[in-house]
Amino acid sequence: MVGIGPGAKEDMSLRALDAVKKSDTIIGYSLYIDLIRDIAGGKEIISSAMRKEVERVELAIQEAQNGKTVSIISSGDSGVYGMSGLVLEILYKENISLSLEIIPGIPAANTAAALLGAPLMHDYAVISLSDLLTPWEMIEKRVRNAAEADFVIVIYNPKSSQRDWQLKKTIEIILEYKSTATPVGIVKKAKREGESILITTLDNIEQDLIDMMTIIIIGNSSSFIFQNYMVTKRGYDI
Amino acid sequence: MVGIGPGAKEDMSLRALDAVKKSDTIIGYSLYIDLIRDIAGGKEIISSAMRKEVERVELAIQEAQNGKTVSIISSGDSGVYGMSGLVLEILYKENISLSLEIIPGIPAANTAAALLGAPLMHDYAVISLSDLLTPWEMIEKRVRNAAEADFVIVIYNPKSSQRDWQLKKTIEIILEYKSTATPVGIVKKAKREGESILITTLDNIEQDLIDMMTIIIIGNSSSFIFQNYMVTKRGYDI
Repeated sequence: MVGIGPGAKEDMSLRALDAVKKSDTIIGYSLYIDLIRDIAGGKEIISSAMRKEVERVELAIQEAQNGKTVSIISSGDSGVYGMSGLVLEILYKENISLSLEIIPGIPAANTAAALLGAPLMHDYAVISLSDLLTPWEMIEKRVRNAAEADFVIVIYNPKSSQRDWQLKKTIEIILEYKSTATPVGIVKKAKREGESILITTLDNIEQDLIDMMTIIIIGNSSSFIFQNYMVTKRGYDI
Repeated sequence: MVGIGPGAKEDMSLRALDAVKKSDTIIGYSLYIDLIRDIAGGKEIISSAMRKEVERVELAIQEAQNGKTVSIISSGDSGVYGMSGLVLEILYKENISLSLEIIPGIPAANTAAALLGAPLMHDYAVISLSDLLTPWEMIEKRVRNAAEADFVIVIYNPKSSQRDWQLKKTIEIILEYKSTATPVGIVKKAKREGESILITTLDNIEQDLIDMMTIIIIGNSSSFIFQNYMVTKRGYDI
């Protein structure tokens, strides 16, 4: 299970790069496979559509049971809303033992944060707004509790063509606890073609810009905007 | 500002490695400088003790103002309890403009998670227990809110020789909301000499093993232990 970071070879760890190079077979969501196609030359490549995660893992397990060395690819970190957990869940369910290596990558949250400045310098909560696999009530409870305790909040999967109201509702809840002037960073396609980076405030989030490929970081009460950076204070007396 | 990940060259991104190699001067906490000493050969190296962060940043700014290319090093991600924020805070305070690049690394939480299995597969909260720079009441509130909303909880800086009661108190609070059987992963010196990895349950955390170099990951209500892995379910119907 290999986390490739945002996509460019330069943002992969040497360990991840090496794992891909040493594999017989590379399996992943087609978009992520495309990102690493140049380093996967000569390999068997199996790419599949979004939401075919279970099928992809079954294929990877079959290949591995046939003696192949298989890399199953996630963007960001394979352990953050990625494929690592699903591989382990299915091995557990089917009672299969395999030789495994889990190679983390730079998570999307941290790539986005570095492009924005340093918004994650204090305690933060990472929440996916996708209610495909999680009841909305649970997500809402997490948003509320994180906002009330003044966490920096990182939002994954804010919006898709099928899910259009969750982000608006989330911002409404957060505004019950955080000031309208709270800095917000919006990063789309971080380190990929079409990258866009926007720093704004909580009362001024332009919903139209946001899609599944967007990470949103909402500051805590110490966050501030400086030049073109969003920064959360660590608490030093300077 | 360069995040080097856990320490070994293999876990750095190519971008981070390249930045260090292209720098005239490398500045960091002595322990982290030691980790990358082999790739920093021939550079001016300025290392300093823990808690000398402000001094380190002032030195880095001076060097950069003298025309040097400077890498200021953090372990893990430079933007997670690292040096990026402090650099930006000081530049803001002193009204200085410099050409900056922020290079993220694999955060300690994610390195620990990969060694444990896949505990961060669902929404998670990252909390430092160090009350040197944060009032304890704030930390306690965050622990309570995170536990109540069934976040996976990642604890940084759980304990030091001067801070010995915070972790015990934290576990007591979490036990008000989470079951005693909740899986807990304890990772010390991840990917470094002396690494230790332990998977246990919330009612069975051995305090003596834990120090400042330890990351603790406490599962949510779906987390389980399988072989020698800790896994949090993503919610797939498998």
